[in-house]
Amino acid sequence: MTMRIGIVGAGQLARMLALAGIPLGLQFKMYDPERDATGGQVAPLVVGRFDDIKALSRFAHSVDVVTFDWENVPVASARAMGGLTRVLPSPRALAAGQERLAEKRLFERLGVPTPNSAPVNRAADLESVARRIGFPALLKTRRWGYDGKGQLLLGGPGDLQGAWERLGSQPLLCEQKVRFSREVSLVAVRSRAGDTAFYPLAQNVHEDGVLVITRAPYQQPQLQKMAEQYAGRILEHLRYVGVLCVEFFVVQGALLANEIAPRVHNSGHWTIEGADTSQFENHLRAIAGLPLGSTRPRGHAVMVNFVGTIPRSRAVLSLGGTHFHDYGKRPRAGRKLGHATYVGSTPRGRDRAARDLLRSAGR
Amino acid sequence: MTMRIGIVGAGQLARMLALAGIPLGLQFKMYDPERDATGGQVAPLVVGRFDDIKALSRFAHSVDVVTFDWENVPVASARAMGGLTRVLPSPRALAAGQERLAEKRLFERLGVPTPNSAPVNRAADLESVARRIGFPALLKTRRWGYDGKGQLLLGGPGDLQGAWERLGSQPLLCEQKVRFSREVSLVAVRSRAGDTAFYPLAQNVHEDGVLVITRAPYQQPQLQKMAEQYAGRILEHLRYVGVLCVEFFVVQGALLANEIAPRVHNSGHWTIEGADTSQFENHLRAIAGLPLGSTRPRGHAVMVNFVGTIPRSRAVLSLGGTHFHDYGKRPRAGRKLGHATYVGSTPRGRDRAARDLLRSAGR
Repeated sequence: MTMRIGIVGAGQLARMLALAGIPLGLQFKMYDPERDATGGQVAPLVVGRFDDIKALSRFAHSVDVVTFDWENVPVASARAMGGLTRVLPSPRALAAGQERLAEKRLFERLGVPTPNSAPVNRAADLESVARRIGFPALLKTRRWGYDGKGQLLLGGPGDLQGAWERLGSQPLLCEQKVRFSREVSLVAVRSRAGDTAFYPLAQNVHEDGVLVITRAPYQQPQLQKMAEQYAGRILEHLRYVGVLCVEFFVVQGALLANEIAPRVHNSGHWTIEGADTSQFENHLRAIAGLPLGSTRPRGHAVMVNFVGTIPRSRAVLSLGGTHFHDYGKRPRAGRKLGHATYVGSTPRGRDRAARDLLRSAGR
Repeated sequence: MTMRIGIVGAGQLARMLALAGIPLGLQFKMYDPERDATGGQVAPLVVGRFDDIKALSRFAHSVDVVTFDWENVPVASARAMGGLTRVLPSPRALAAGQERLAEKRLFERLGVPTPNSAPVNRAADLESVARRIGFPALLKTRRWGYDGKGQLLLGGPGDLQGAWERLGSQPLLCEQKVRFSREVSLVAVRSRAGDTAFYPLAQNVHEDGVLVITRAPYQQPQLQKMAEQYAGRILEHLRYVGVLCVEFFVVQGALLANEIAPRVHNSGHWTIEGADTSQFENHLRAIAGLPLGSTRPRGHAVMVNFVGTIPRSRAVLSLGGTHFHDYGKRPRAGRKLGHATYVGSTPRGRDRAARDLLRSAGR
């Protein structure tokens, strides 16, 4: 019997999941509000809203497992589907990554260090909370945060009123702005049988909140061990099934958890060519009840995002040793349109390729 | 502008070509006589006969490049399409692999050693030709030979009449049956710009003419050099564009060319996980006018075919370090349904995995 996988959200993550899963004998079906969602180029697409419980229930009925390309699917929708078929990661795990305050409390409960923060529910609270946290701080919406959206920098007391006016219509979190030396992320996976596997830490550079470049492996055995312990606690606590990404700040040689994403992650795209088994294949193996594959790195990888514009494949492939991924999306400012990966045998060769790739991306 | 690739023949080769090419931003369309051809699961499928020039012309009109998953497409069909769009490999190159006598003459003309042979056109010729070639010999149809089809062993004069009765309705070739120590193959690729690249030699084992297992790289630097020279001559002579596979016998430390396949080849499936760039991606890069990718092996690979039956993915993936490829085809005796690949860091680990994989395939 062919296993049918339904993916809610049909962006590039869904597209790369399907490309990784078709060889495994899995069948795919996607669901997205956008008629021209890129995932629809590789699998049948059902068009519907993420809060249309009726349409999502029909979708869930037609597949054996539902998973997500987008973590902000309403938890009520996920729960409704969970009554009809297997939903992985679970609605509970999905919920954990959607609300920043719940995420913070999860970190604290599991002993995962994270920057200081406090909720802000009323204008009157903001000043006292910000003074307690200390400046500079970040004011963040508790929901719908991704790619740096929904957050403002508070440099000092003078920024408070403007920030409140822009974000204050919804529950907020005020968070210490830490001075980190690096941003790193750990892509972790847990199978239905409870086995876990971890990719090497990746080092990320963001610009305006959007990931620009990832280098992996980030070779710091102590930090790798810490990161695996923290991620392992989260996976176990949530009885998580599938790929989960934890983003960390490196501060004075220690890790502070920034956020989790309950899905395959942009900072894991390098694993397609750079690891024995890609994050996409391992997510599918996990949710399909199959054994996990090796997460061993094949060399020193760099991944560069193409945001807003995408170079011609010829320009990227001429660099040598590079692999090109075009998501088949219409160009638009700030939109992730594709990425390129290089895997070399030394960090030095990798860093040279990184410079060439950044140039090809117009940076 | 998205480049549209049309593949004539929509079997597993077409399917794996599309999976490799979608990330490059290529768009696929397939053509096959069978409504349920497996390639149709990953790209739009036009159903039609390989000799329906009108339907094939419409197909050619709708794409930017036509290529093949099946080398026995009539040359007249390929030529008709060649008048309308770019056809790669060229109809001339396609023809070279379709007729055994032409293939033999090509080898001889280019100084590529090959087992002795002679054409047999009439019953009266068979005995004298066979005596000149010597027993044991093989009697082969000059067309439609693949997977060991269309050939019979001539152990001695007593086999001649029966063999003639079975095959003699069409032009034949009588060929010396060489006692080889190994069968190896070289997957080669030539770009539109004339650059060439060669994968490491692979060692193949056939059963009843069907490939069972491939190990690569076959580490014999002298033979590698010879094979690249021979394949290089063929690529240049045909001004070939795309992937070409040359199968050789190893006889007393030298190579004798057995046949060529003007397409991606089963003995190159290991390159998906086992080489920096797969044969599928390199074929597409070649015909799309892009630079070739590195053919460097990532380790010691083994590929095992699933013929007639296919194990459950769980059984194969439980072996550890393995990758599974299900072609989504209905099981039928003798049909290639999928394959599995293992890539290890030593030949020894690879050979251990090979035994496990053969067992999973029921051998």
